[in-house]
Amino acid sequence: MKTVFKITLIGSGNVATHLGRVLVNNGFTINEVYSKSLDNAEGLAKQLKANATNQITALSNNTDLYLICLKDDTISSILVDFPFKDQLIAHTSGSIPLDIFKEHGFNRYGVFYPLQTFSKEKEVAINEVPFCVEASDNKSKEVLLSIANQISTNVYEISSEQRKILHVAAVFASNFTNHLYSIAQEITDSYDLDFNILKPLIDETTKKAFQNPPRLMQTGPAKRNDKKLIADHLAFLADQPAYQKIYHLLSDSIIDSLK
Amino acid sequence: MKTVFKITLIGSGNVATHLGRVLVNNGFTINEVYSKSLDNAEGLAKQLKANATNQITALSNNTDLYLICLKDDTISSILVDFPFKDQLIAHTSGSIPLDIFKEHGFNRYGVFYPLQTFSKEKEVAINEVPFCVEASDNKSKEVLLSIANQISTNVYEISSEQRKILHVAAVFASNFTNHLYSIAQEITDSYDLDFNILKPLIDETTKKAFQNPPRLMQTGPAKRNDKKLIADHLAFLADQPAYQKIYHLLSDSIIDSLK
Repeated sequence: MKTVFKITLIGSGNVATHLGRVLVNNGFTINEVYSKSLDNAEGLAKQLKANATNQITALSNNTDLYLICLKDDTISSILVDFPFKDQLIAHTSGSIPLDIFKEHGFNRYGVFYPLQTFSKEKEVAINEVPFCVEASDNKSKEVLLSIANQISTNVYEISSEQRKILHVAAVFASNFTNHLYSIAQEITDSYDLDFNILKPLIDETTKKAFQNPPRLMQTGPAKRNDKKLIADHLAFLADQPAYQKIYHLLSDSIIDSLK
Repeated sequence: MKTVFKITLIGSGNVATHLGRVLVNNGFTINEVYSKSLDNAEGLAKQLKANATNQITALSNNTDLYLICLKDDTISSILVDFPFKDQLIAHTSGSIPLDIFKEHGFNRYGVFYPLQTFSKEKEVAINEVPFCVEASDNKSKEVLLSIANQISTNVYEISSEQRKILHVAAVFASNFTNHLYSIAQEITDSYDLDFNILKPLIDETTKKAFQNPPRLMQTGPAKRNDKKLIADHLAFLADQPAYQKIYHLLSDSIIDSLK
């Protein structure tokens, strides 16, 4: 069933941009875009054929949902000044509890968390993105689930506690992994080697992780407890003590995890 | 050009098994399989229609290439007892220098290193695997390049020094990454959440790494230097001090790398 809602975006960063585009592409109306920078609000609003404002107290109330796409540490201050407490409002954060809305006197609220990494200028296949939905009441939940199900095939009802756990796991599986890729690229770049040589290896590692438990798929010097090779690699990293420390700690952790 | 060689596999583990199968599938003959365990040698030899032995001194010399697929720390002892010093011999290790053969009195030798992670019971698309080739002389190099080019589209001439660098980078990009997946799964499993919810996120992270420099694609609490959230996550991990330590170190490293 296609139910079209009018949505107001609070924020104009990566999450607001990606969600705004996919919502418009799926027939939703973005009514208004708020950003504390009027330029940013207008920039995104123009793409989405929406109005723009940088005054939270001047927001239109002609909307079905206020969708907050802001950094975690700015959400609270926006809620303090928010003019409408009886309309549906949701945030998109992995870590802010649902209760933040109650604490600020809201009556209908929810969470609409896309478990994905969004970067500027990089399109994401939103229809595969898991959306984690939670709400204050059934009617609000139905609206959020309806929107999520119209843009993604991966929609979950997830409590604030579960969302926090998923977020911690995601930091390990995505943010930290990306940092390791970054270190690997720094190493290959430093010696004029092509980082792309590592692509088949990385693809295979990632593919395997969802076919068998990654713990059982572990390979490498630490898995074999090859002390000589580990010492060689640590010596090679002597000029980069930060990376040496990471190599040491993760190798020890692999060795311990296989005991 | 198709040039078929007779190959002897020294070893019967994951690398020997994967390479043996792909060589046979590409029309090569595996003449003989050596393993210190006769059972293991016979098990693999049967699959490859080869002979089997557990006596290194009893190896046949009816071969074009001895391909050593052993753990790094056992290669040296095999070379000591190896009966033929004038036939082409190569190893498949990421870290053992080419010179190990010279040190043991060999005259024709090389390296045939597949930069990939091989696990039992998990087929690998060998034709995409980068093969790093190095040899003592042009004729030996031609044989190794010919074999590599017949089974893969990704063949590189790589020096021992470059191979070592690639190997260190691969430990970060694959072995450590897999360990982070393993930690993420342990976290989701502990709370009865489905690890597969993280798949689109992990796929996107990996895809992005080869479209833009991963350093520029970094997201997450450390990227935003969100001290409150980092402290929250560290508190959540209080019962798992090893993972807490990894979270701490990698977050600090991300923060430092973006300075």
